[in-house]
Amino acid sequence: MAIVGYGNLGKGVETALGLAPDLELVGVFSRRDPLSVATLGAPVFALSELDESRDDIDVLILCGGSKSDLPVQTPELASRFTLVDSFDTHAKIPEHFAAVDQAARAAGTTAVISSGWDPGLFSLQRMFGEAILPEGRTYTFWGQGLSQGHSDALRRIDGVRLAVQYTIPSEEAIEQVRSGSRPELTARQQHVRDCYVVLEEGADEAAIREAIVTMPDYFEPYDTTVHVITEEVFERDHQGMPHGGFVIRSGESSPGMQQTMEFQLTLGSNPEFTSSVLVAYARAAAKLARSGDHGAKTVYDIAPGLLSPKSPAQLRAELL
Amino acid sequence: MAIVGYGNLGKGVETALGLAPDLELVGVFSRRDPLSVATLGAPVFALSELDESRDDIDVLILCGGSKSDLPVQTPELASRFTLVDSFDTHAKIPEHFAAVDQAARAAGTTAVISSGWDPGLFSLQRMFGEAILPEGRTYTFWGQGLSQGHSDALRRIDGVRLAVQYTIPSEEAIEQVRSGSRPELTARQQHVRDCYVVLEEGADEAAIREAIVTMPDYFEPYDTTVHVITEEVFERDHQGMPHGGFVIRSGESSPGMQQTMEFQLTLGSNPEFTSSVLVAYARAAAKLARSGDHGAKTVYDIAPGLLSPKSPAQLRAELL
Repeated sequence: MAIVGYGNLGKGVETALGLAPDLELVGVFSRRDPLSVATLGAPVFALSELDESRDDIDVLILCGGSKSDLPVQTPELASRFTLVDSFDTHAKIPEHFAAVDQAARAAGTTAVISSGWDPGLFSLQRMFGEAILPEGRTYTFWGQGLSQGHSDALRRIDGVRLAVQYTIPSEEAIEQVRSGSRPELTARQQHVRDCYVVLEEGADEAAIREAIVTMPDYFEPYDTTVHVITEEVFERDHQGMPHGGFVIRSGESSPGMQQTMEFQLTLGSNPEFTSSVLVAYARAAAKLARSGDHGAKTVYDIAPGLLSPKSPAQLRAELL
Repeated sequence: MAIVGYGNLGKGVETALGLAPDLELVGVFSRRDPLSVATLGAPVFALSELDESRDDIDVLILCGGSKSDLPVQTPELASRFTLVDSFDTHAKIPEHFAAVDQAARAAGTTAVISSGWDPGLFSLQRMFGEAILPEGRTYTFWGQGLSQGHSDALRRIDGVRLAVQYTIPSEEAIEQVRSGSRPELTARQQHVRDCYVVLEEGADEAAIREAIVTMPDYFEPYDTTVHVITEEVFERDHQGMPHGGFVIRSGESSPGMQQTMEFQLTLGSNPEFTSSVLVAYARAAAKLARSGDHGAKTVYDIAPGLLSPKSPAQLRAELL
C-alpha cells in the first residue's frame, strides 16, 4: 500500500495500516518537499517519484481533499494504479465515478471511490434499509461532530477569538423517529448547533450571542446554543475531532407491523475512522484487481467479505 | 419467485413480495395437501409439481426449518433451481455450504444460504466491525425476543398453564460495552430472562416461582424475573413474535482513541423481518445467476447493491 497525501487522513491511514495483519506500507508520497513531511515512521517520497515504485505498490490510498485534489488525482492515478479514495461531495459522485471508471477500465485497474463512513458505511445502511423494508422512511443524523464551515463562520464575528461548532442530532427528532411515527423531518429539524466561543478582551458578549443566533442560514434556522468559555477550557476540551451519527430505517413489513433498523457510529476521531474504512476497502481493491474485476467501484459493488483479511471459509466458520 | 414451505416464514415472504416493485410470486409449493394450505392469496401447488413450473421460476425462496428441512432440501433443490434459504444452525454452516455449493456448481445455479438477520445482517456487522477496527471486541446481544425453548421449559412445570419467555439484553452489560471498557462477557452475562406465566387454578405460586428461578441451565445461571399474569393479559399482550438485538464493535484506531460501531434491530415480527431479508437476497440471487456467478453464496459474497431494485447508477446518485 502507498499513501498519497499526508494530512489528518494520511496519518490515520499510516496508523490503521499498522494494525492490519496482512498489509504493508511502502511509503507516503507527497507534493510537498519530502523532508518537510513528518510521518509516524513511514518513509516519504516526492509524488513525482510514484511511478518508480510501481512494482512494489498494489494499491494507492488517496488522502487528498474532495474539493480540488481528488477530482483531478483519482482519474489521473487510476490510469496507472489500483486505488481507493474517500471522495465525499455527494452531488458530484456520478460525475467523479464516470471519469474514474473510464480511466480505470482503459488501464485495467480497480478504483474504489467514496469509501469512508458517509459516503460509505452510512450509504450501505441507507441501501439495506430501503431494499429490505421498501415500505418506510430512512433518516440520517450526523453528530455529535465538529463542523468546519460553521466554526469558520463563528470566527468571522468581530470579538470572537477562538470558536468551534458541533452539530448534534436533536434528541426530540431521534425519539420521534425511534417511536416509529415516521415524521417528515428536514435536516434542520433533525439537528441542533452547539457553539463554544472564546471572546477577545472587552468584547460585547450579549451582542456576539445575538449575532450568532440570528446569523442567516448558518444558525438562525436551528436551535442554537452558545457557550462562552475560557481559552484554557478551549485548549483542554475542544481539540479533538469527534464525529458520528445514525442511520435509522423505520418501516413496516405488513400494515402496522413496525420494524426498525439502526446503525450508529460514535467516533473519537473522524479522520482516524475514515482511514480505517479506507484501509479495509484498499484490501478489497487489491483482491478485485487481482481477480480481474476492473473499473470504478463503490461500496455497493463490493462483496463485504473482501474487506476482511480472513478467507471466505474462515468467515463462514467464525463470524456467520 | 416461488415459496417452498408455508409457515410463519412463508407467509412473511408472501407479504414481503407484495411490497417489492420488481418481483412476482408464481406460487407456494407445499408438502401438504394444497387444499389445506390457506395463503394470503397466492396459488398453492404440491411440492411434487415444482419441476412443471421450472420455466416460470427464477428463484425459490425456501421457508423450511433448519433442523430437518433445509439440510436435505437446499442441496437437493439447488441441483435444479437458483434459490435462497435462511439456514441458521451456526455450527453446521460450513457443512451445509459445502453440500449446497457442490450441487449448485454442478447444476450451474446460484444458492444463497443463511440469509436473514442472524445469520445474515448481524454476521455482516460482525465482519465490518472486525475488518475496520481490528483492535477491539465485538458483542452480539439478542432480544428483546421470544425464546421458544425456554417457553417450553416453563410450560413443563406442574401448575403452569400458559407461559412465554423473553430474552432481554442486560442494560448493565450494554452500558459497560457502550462505555468503551471492552469487558469480557459471556452470553449469560449479556442477557436476562423475563417469564410471563398463567397458573392453573389452585397452583402454588411461590413453589412455581422457585422452580423457575432455580431450573438449571435454563434459568438458574441468569438474572430471571417471573411475572404471574392472567389469561386475559396473556392473550392480549403476549401473542406477538418480537425480536431484535444489537451488534456492537468497540475498538480503537490508535492507542486510547475509542471508536464504536453499533447495529440495532427492533423487530415487531421476527419471521416477517427474516422474510424481508430473504426477499432482498432472492433478488440478488436472480442477478447473480443471470450473470453466471454460480455456486453457494453467503451474505459475505454478495455485493450489497444487488439487493436493491435500483440500478447501480441510481444507487450512486440517490443513496451514496
